[in-house]
Amino acid sequence: MTGHPADEPPVALSIGEARDLARRVLGACGLASDHAAAVAETMVRGERDGCTSHGLYRLLVAARSVEQGVAVPDAVPQVTEPAPALVRVDGGGGFAQLPFERGMPLLVAKARRYGIAALALNNAVHFAALWPEVEALAEEGLVALAFTPSHAWVAPEGGTQPVFGTNPIAFAWPRPGRAPFVFDFATSAVARGEIELHRRAGKPVPPDWGYDPQGQPSTDAEAVLAGAMRTFGAHKGSALAAMVELIAGPLIGDMTSAESMAADEGRGGSPIGGELILAIDPAGFLGAGVSDHLARAEAMFAAIEQQGARLPGTRRLAARARSDTQGLAIPAQVHRDIMQILEGRPPK
Amino acid sequence: MTGHPADEPPVALSIGEARDLARRVLGACGLASDHAAAVAETMVRGERDGCTSHGLYRLLVAARSVEQGVAVPDAVPQVTEPAPALVRVDGGGGFAQLPFERGMPLLVAKARRYGIAALALNNAVHFAALWPEVEALAEEGLVALAFTPSHAWVAPEGGTQPVFGTNPIAFAWPRPGRAPFVFDFATSAVARGEIELHRRAGKPVPPDWGYDPQGQPSTDAEAVLAGAMRTFGAHKGSALAAMVELIAGPLIGDMTSAESMAADEGRGGSPIGGELILAIDPAGFLGAGVSDHLARAEAMFAAIEQQGARLPGTRRLAARARSDTQGLAIPAQVHRDIMQILEGRPPK
Repeated sequence: MTGHPADEPPVALSIGEARDLARRVLGACGLASDHAAAVAETMVRGERDGCTSHGLYRLLVAARSVEQGVAVPDAVPQVTEPAPALVRVDGGGGFAQLPFERGMPLLVAKARRYGIAALALNNAVHFAALWPEVEALAEEGLVALAFTPSHAWVAPEGGTQPVFGTNPIAFAWPRPGRAPFVFDFATSAVARGEIELHRRAGKPVPPDWGYDPQGQPSTDAEAVLAGAMRTFGAHKGSALAAMVELIAGPLIGDMTSAESMAADEGRGGSPIGGELILAIDPAGFLGAGVSDHLARAEAMFAAIEQQGARLPGTRRLAARARSDTQGLAIPAQVHRDIMQILEGRPPK
Repeated sequence: MTGHPADEPPVALSIGEARDLARRVLGACGLASDHAAAVAETMVRGERDGCTSHGLYRLLVAARSVEQGVAVPDAVPQVTEPAPALVRVDGGGGFAQLPFERGMPLLVAKARRYGIAALALNNAVHFAALWPEVEALAEEGLVALAFTPSHAWVAPEGGTQPVFGTNPIAFAWPRPGRAPFVFDFATSAVARGEIELHRRAGKPVPPDWGYDPQGQPSTDAEAVLAGAMRTFGAHKGSALAAMVELIAGPLIGDMTSAESMAADEGRGGSPIGGELILAIDPAGFLGAGVSDHLARAEAMFAAIEQQGARLPGTRRLAARARSDTQGLAIPAQVHRDIMQILEGRPPK
């Protein structure tokens, strides 16, 4: 970190260059080429949409996951159909992106055939946001929901000890002629990375973000990271966090956040476990009326935006438009750390 | 309301007596007997579980709905199967309880056959909580979710004008040998009835509950009722409220909360429109492993309760146990108003 001015200019990359770089780096980490391509695509989508914490920076996280043995670099996803409208992909301990890619065509086909279908990803390493997956389904004209537990970092409302993960919920809705309506949020009060940033900056956190290991509300970021975060929205957010644990854990035969944390054995790796994705075909209920009824949804979006409120994802789509015309700008230090992996010297 | 002491004792009824009374009153309102039985059952379940605002008190609301022509008293629900895993019940403008009863067996059968299934209730009058429906599905061993819009009373985060309804989300999870894990909450910051209670008591509401019709935060309950309520959980709750509008409105070919409000034409009736119910069979993903994995869910519930946090529904189940041994206690004034309907003098 020394010897480089903090204000040095970022490294400019086209989206194609970023994709190539990410694939090469993941290949250098030992990932099989199909995994490298799938994981790179997710990171490039994050970088392109301005979600830098889920962008190329995650190459460093992925490299460490492989090095520590958390992620199996050449796992072969196994696709099965446990019931007519259900798809299951066992990720074999590899990253979740390739299992999703392998399961998605069958999920889409089943949603169109039966009206609704579900995909469970099992035994996969999760480090990415869920929105790229639900957005991809909405681009196929489907309504999609996704859920995944993580590590036990979050206390239930009324308690102070960690039980839940940050347990995100993502949703996507197809919009004719434009990018889908998409949201993706943690059911924790804030992202864990936000507390981490406060810790690095030596700044106190607001008193309602979490508890220290003794169960007392704390403004000490390090104590909250060692203790428990809170859910968003009091008992309602806590109820949703419990639902995510249940439907993307025991319902699909995979780990709860507490079990994932225990399996990590203190390595600090990305959560390993399950993800549940639901897809509903609007044509199932609507038949030939799909476009009329989607137009009524557009009227609701207009009623939101006409009063100056923003739809979820607005900032992300603006960043996407910028990236598509101006390319990407990677912070110089992140780019340097990434290049070290290519040179066989993975950053610490 | 005059001439009766405020502290007069409540009227004691057994659950069976309450059911008979509710059926007779609904019959006196003109409801067809199958509707009367279904609606009475929902009200008795509310009363029994201590949800008095959804209990026998609602007989007064139902009576007014029929009298005003909001609800069709003898609608015949039409059940169709628009896709293999989808059920639709057109309620024909009647109360939603009978349509749910008519659609549920097919929903259960489809969830068991396909692994996941969905039921849309259309064109039905909604005045009740969603938890009795998802609980009934969990009693069949299924995991269930339910969503419904209402009237446009709630502003999106970042705006001040009403777009969303109070848009509840309900969830139920089967627990071997005991009552299901169930939650059911509005995505508005508080229930609309809560603001109404403040208005009646002449008490100010907290400044973060809503806006007056000019879009200013207000502590005046009447102004907030005329203006807009806020969602719970800031932008996350607002995103969920939008999702409920979409999936229980346009996705199933039914009204958004704004459209339901417009259709009401100022009568102040219960919302008319759709409801979406999802059911997932744990055996679909788990096969013979269901009981092992449900046991892992029990471990999560234990981790919540062992630290002194309450599971959602705990108070409701305690009230249920009390009601089952001690019977019900109906406030004297509510009982008197109900009896007036039987005597052909509907209360104002």
